[in-house]
Parts: sequence; C-alpha cells; structure tokens
Amino acid sequence: MTPPSDTNLGPESPVIDTSNLPGHSIELGRDAPLVLDCGASLGPFIVAYQTYGSLNTEKSNAVLVCHALTGDQFVAELHPITGKAGWWDLMVGSGKPLDTERYFIICANVLSGCMGTTGPRSENPETGKPYGLDFPVITIRDMVNAQKLLIDHLGIEKLFCVIGGSMGGMQALQWAVSYPEHVFSAVPIAASARHSAQNIAFHEIGRQAIVADPNWNGGDYYSHETRPHSGLAVARMVAHITYLSESSLHQKFGRRLQDRSEVAYGFDADFRVESYLRHQGITFVERFDANSYLYITRAMDYFDLAEEYDSVLARAFSETPVRFCVISFTSDWLFPTSESRTVVHALNAAAANVSFVEIEADGGHDSFLLDVPELHVTLTGFLGGAAAHRGVT
Amino acid sequence: MTPPSDTNLGPESPVIDTSNLPGHSIELGRDAPLVLDCGASLGPFIVAYQTYGSLNTEKSNAVLVCHALTGDQFVAELHPITGKAGWWDLMVGSGKPLDTERYFIICANVLSGCMGTTGPRSENPETGKPYGLDFPVITIRDMVNAQKLLIDHLGIEKLFCVIGGSMGGMQALQWAVSYPEHVFSAVPIAASARHSAQNIAFHEIGRQAIVADPNWNGGDYYSHETRPHSGLAVARMVAHITYLSESSLHQKFGRRLQDRSEVAYGFDADFRVESYLRHQGITFVERFDANSYLYITRAMDYFDLAEEYDSVLARAFSETPVRFCVISFTSDWLFPTSESRTVVHALNAAAANVSFVEIEADGGHDSFLLDVPELHVTLTGFLGGAAAHRGVT
Repeated sequence: MTPPSDTNLGPESPVIDTSNLPGHSIELGRDAPLVLDCGASLGPFIVAYQTYGSLNTEKSNAVLVCHALTGDQFVAELHPITGKAGWWDLMVGSGKPLDTERYFIICANVLSGCMGTTGPRSENPETGKPYGLDFPVITIRDMVNAQKLLIDHLGIEKLFCVIGGSMGGMQALQWAVSYPEHVFSAVPIAASARHSAQNIAFHEIGRQAIVADPNWNGGDYYSHETRPHSGLAVARMVAHITYLSESSLHQKFGRRLQDRSEVAYGFDADFRVESYLRHQGITFVERFDANSYLYITRAMDYFDLAEEYDSVLARAFSETPVRFCVISFTSDWLFPTSESRTVVHALNAAAANVSFVEIEADGGHDSFLLDVPELHVTLTGFLGGAAAHRGVT
Repeated sequence: MTPPSDTNLGPESPVIDTSNLPGHSIELGRDAPLVLDCGASLGPFIVAYQTYGSLNTEKSNAVLVCHALTGDQFVAELHPITGKAGWWDLMVGSGKPLDTERYFIICANVLSGCMGTTGPRSENPETGKPYGLDFPVITIRDMVNAQKLLIDHLGIEKLFCVIGGSMGGMQALQWAVSYPEHVFSAVPIAASARHSAQNIAFHEIGRQAIVADPNWNGGDYYSHETRPHSGLAVARMVAHITYLSESSLHQKFGRRLQDRSEVAYGFDADFRVESYLRHQGITFVERFDANSYLYITRAMDYFDLAEEYDSVLARAFSETPVRFCVISFTSDWLFPTSESRTVVHALNAAAANVSFVEIEADGGHDSFLLDVPELHVTLTGFLGGAAAHRGVT
C-alpha cells in the first residue's frame, strides 16, 4: 500500500499577490480612525471595492452587495487570481436580477479580508511588518462601519438595497440595524441573526486545523517560504461539506469512484467525493490567507444582533423603515430556514415591512450562489417593487 | 491580542500502552492466515476481547457486541486507559437490557484497532517494526471474519445476537449477511447498509487532518518522540460535531461563554462549545492511534453490503433466518432514519423477520450511547422475545 499521493499541498505555493488588482481602493480612517468593537482603533486603512453599472444623478440606485466568508469584491467578472467567473455572475449584470442597466452595484472586500482591504496580511504601520495576529479582531459591525465610510465617500446618502448571502446576509441585517435611515431595503439570504453553536463549532475546527499547521507559526508566516496551506485546506474542506446538502452530495457523487473501476484498498482518493474535496482545499489556498480565515470566521462567531438589546431581537428592528426580503433554502442545514424565521418573527414583532420566501432548492447553503430560478424570480420581483417605491427607474 | 493558548496538544504526550490490558487476547490465523478483502493474507494476528456474564452449557446465550469507530472491547467496566465508565455501561450489566445474568457478552477490539487487536501499530513480523501504512487495508467484512474465528475458538456455533451502534451496526449487518446460519438475531442501531457520500467526505477531512500533520510522517511515527496529535485531535473534533444534533449542541452550549462574562475578541475558546470540542480532541489522542483512525474510517467508507449483489440489497438478505431489530434516532443526521429504512425495506423484500423502531431522541448519532429509555425498552423487549424463541432462560 502506498501513502496518499495527491495530498501534497505545497506549502511553498505562490504567495497571493494583490498588488495589481483591478477595481478601486480607497484609504479611509486617516483623520478619524475607525473605533472597533474590540476597543482598538484602526486607521488609516484600505478598502478595496468593485462597482458595476452607473450611479444615477439622484444617487438612489446604489446596491451594496456583501460577500460571504470566502468571497470578495469580484462579483461579476473574471476573478483576477483564479480566472473563474465572479461568484455572483448569475445574479449581477445586464438584464439579471441585479440589473446593471438599472442599479449601481458596489461590493467591498471586508475588513480583515485578503483581497486588497486591510487585514492581517497588511503592513502594520507601527512595525512596518504584516500585522499577523496583531491585527485587531473584527466584528460584522466593524465590517459594516467600514463599508459606511466607503458609501459616505461615494456620496451616497441612502443605499437602495443591501444584499448578501450567508455572512453577506449578516452584514445586510447589521446595516439595517446600524443605519436604518441609510438603507431603503435589505435582503439577507441564507443568513441568521446570530451564529449557532454548531456553526461556531465548525468554525472552531477550521481554526484548529490552521493553528495546528506548524507553518502557521503563531500567525507570523508572511516573511517565510512556507505557508499553512495544509491546515487552511483542511479548514476549507470541512467548511465545504457544510455548504452542500446531503442529497446534493449524494446526487453529485454518491459512492462513485474516481478514475477507477474498483476500490484500491488504500488512502488515495478512491471516491469522487474525496478528490472533489481535495481539489476544493488545494485551489482555495491559492487565493485565500489563513489568518484572514481565522479573523473572518471569528467575526461570524461573534455575530449576535440581539445581544445589545437584552436578547430581544425585535428591539433591534424597532420602528425600522427598511423593507426586508428574507430568503432561505429548504436544504440549507448550516443556516436553516428556522434561522430566517427567527429574523422574520422579530421583524413582524417590530411591525416591519417584510416578505419571506423559503425556496425549495437542493443545493444546501450554497444555493444562493447557484442557478436557482425561484431565487432570481424572487429578487427580481422584490427589487422591482422596491425600485418603484423608491422611484428608481 | 494573544495567540491561542489552550491548543497545545503536546505531540510528546504519552504513548498508548496496551501491554498490560485487562481481558483476554488470542492469537488467530497462525495455521491458516485470514484472507482479506484487499487480497492480502494476515496471520498470525491477535484479537483482544472482553467478556461479561457466563456462557450457558447449551452455548446459546452468547451476544456479540460490536463497537463503533473509536470504541473498544471495554464495554461495561472502567476503561483501563481513561479510567472512565465503559462505553455501554448503561446497556450491559446485571438487570440491564443486555443482562449479564442471562447473556454471555463478548466484545472484541476490531482488526486494525489500537486496543490490543492487531493493527497498524502492531509489529510487522516481516520487519520486526510496527506496520504503519504497510498494514493492509481492512474492511468491515474482514473485521467480522476475524470475529468469526474468535467465536469458533470459543466453541460457539450460533450467536444469540450480534448488536452494535454505528460501525457496530454495520458489523451486525455484515454478520447476518456473511454468517446467517450462525446468528440468531441482529440489532443494527444508528447504522446503514452503505456509507454515504457525506459520511465519506467527513472521514476524508479527518484523514486529511492527520496526514497533514508533519508528525504523522507517512504513518511511520511509532519510533519517534512525536505523534500526530494535532491532526488526530482535529479529526476527532470534526467527527464529534457529526455525532451530536444541532439542537443538542444548542441546548448544551448555545452561545454561552466559557469562564468569562463577555467575549475576549481573540482566538481563545470564548464559547463553551469551543472548549468542549478542544477537550474532546485533547483527550482522544491519549487513547487512540492516528493510523488506526485512518484504517477504521476507511473500512467504514468501503462498506456497501449490496455491492456484490448487483446493488440489490434485498438479495444480500435472501432467505435469511436471522431475526432483525433495526433502530434509528430522529435527531441522527449522520446515519439518518432513511438509512435504516433502506435496510428495513430490503429485509421486507426478502421476507425477513424484522422489527423497526425510530426512536424520538435529541442526542443525534450518539443517542445509542446515551440514557434513552425507549432504546432500553426496545432492546429489552426484542431480546426477551428472541430469547424465548431461542429457549434462552
């Protein structure tokens, strides 16, 4: 029997180079640093963002798209590092639900990310070296506060819509709570008002896999030849399972074998689902920073909208003028419909304007990224109605 | 911010010492080696086992208990290494469902295990060194075939019952298929007739975490000072989440904090669920061998009872004389009720004698290990009825 042959993740794989990214970036917080939830102040810092479509003269057609844990600002174009289609290419573009002929789409890489926005791999001005674990811990609200500075910079008084799936949906909810007068509508998809124990547990596994990798080196690996690619790949693999439904895994792979007619009685990837997962891990490390993974998962863990309202979520939405469209998917077990229902019940208790759709879809949590016709129809309808109210033509 | 402080798993932790285990062990396969599914021959090899109660003169009261992935033969006594109660102490003993006043209970450490039975940490007679990855890959059927040799050695012609949960249930099913004339009754609990794509995927994560640990060293770590404890701990942690239900995690931990009144904005275990998981990982490495984890998970992945019957499961049970009691739990998402139903449908199609109970329990897959009264009632009833038929008094 031979040892596993296709698990060499190459800790020496190329370093992610974000020095020449397309799109925009802006320095914020130079005059007044951003005060973070952890108490630290951050500034100046960079926010990298991308836009699609044009801002109308009334500045009433701006849609902020918020990306998920491993997403970034390259929503609807070829990704500059992977060369693959943007993560929401199906949704954003001319004639698509987020119609770039009608709306001005903005997406910013989140604070603590690794695609141009300041994060743990950025230079710490105090030391001239990458922050590593000296980067302050970030919350979803910190991410949103940084986005608010960007929106202010763009001269947009009120966003027509804030929309996102998963962690993007958390940001959409946080926007509605933090800046209700600056958000006309909010669309949290496959999201929740607080991260569940099971989800914290899955994140903790990913983090443990990273910190267990000796190449992680206490977070100080940027100047080294090696990277914690093995740990980060394992983190990605375990997360990836949680993004899919059991039935989609079964339909996609079942017990089918990879490039062989019978099992090899060994530890190579006999089953297609194994080689698929390994591929997910290997490709992920080429575009993502391990420390960013620690920070962003932590931000999600800490998310609990009701916390400062004595755990009464409805109070977070008290007298909100925001129009909500809450969307969940039947096969999503990471952010199940019950989480969306909790949000909807709170919005109802706050007498908010809310529509709620649970979409029958087999793709699990990742359904928000997939070609799910009912999702397209729902968004087109909701945004169209909201645009009519808002006077966006 | 400080780096994680409680993640030091100590690769130098004590080596598992099984040289003075209580219970029995027997050398098998010296004259006729066991021919394994992979084609290799194994022999001689050791099977370590434990018994409770007494074999009656008719030898008709023997119950073979089959353990799960990380279980062992110490079913109903203090574990010699951990000092904790046996894993089925609730079920096995005087006056309990598996009543030691009535039944003779046998449990053997599975082939490729690490609690006395021959496995990858055993000495390879060809080299005089531990097998490591030179140990042949084992299947559930190989495990059962080794148990059959043990049962033969004990002079038992027909087992009164073969019972087990999870991988133990796979063995119970395999026994019924491989040796239908030697099994009076079989009780697969929280099991399946084949391992699902999702379960293979979760196992693959665990294996990747182990092989990514540099201390794993291609499986050759037994003579080293260091062990792949970090990787094995991550493997255990991810598996552990799958053993619990979302609602039990929520009830047990929710978002409650560990020894603090507010979050620390760092990567220590802020949440109780995190420190619980870390504890699960740390304690596991003290009693389990990383290579055994690779081998046993692989055996489960390969399990597919219908495979050699043209994928028609009913044919595996054709004309079976075995009485079955199939049990599942409502909150088990790793081996959900649908898996048990598949077995029951096949047994029905084979006109087998089968009863099926789905038990309402909140504990997830681990429910078979917990104090679930309906499980006790079900087993007591089924075994009592079977014993009356079998004439066991």
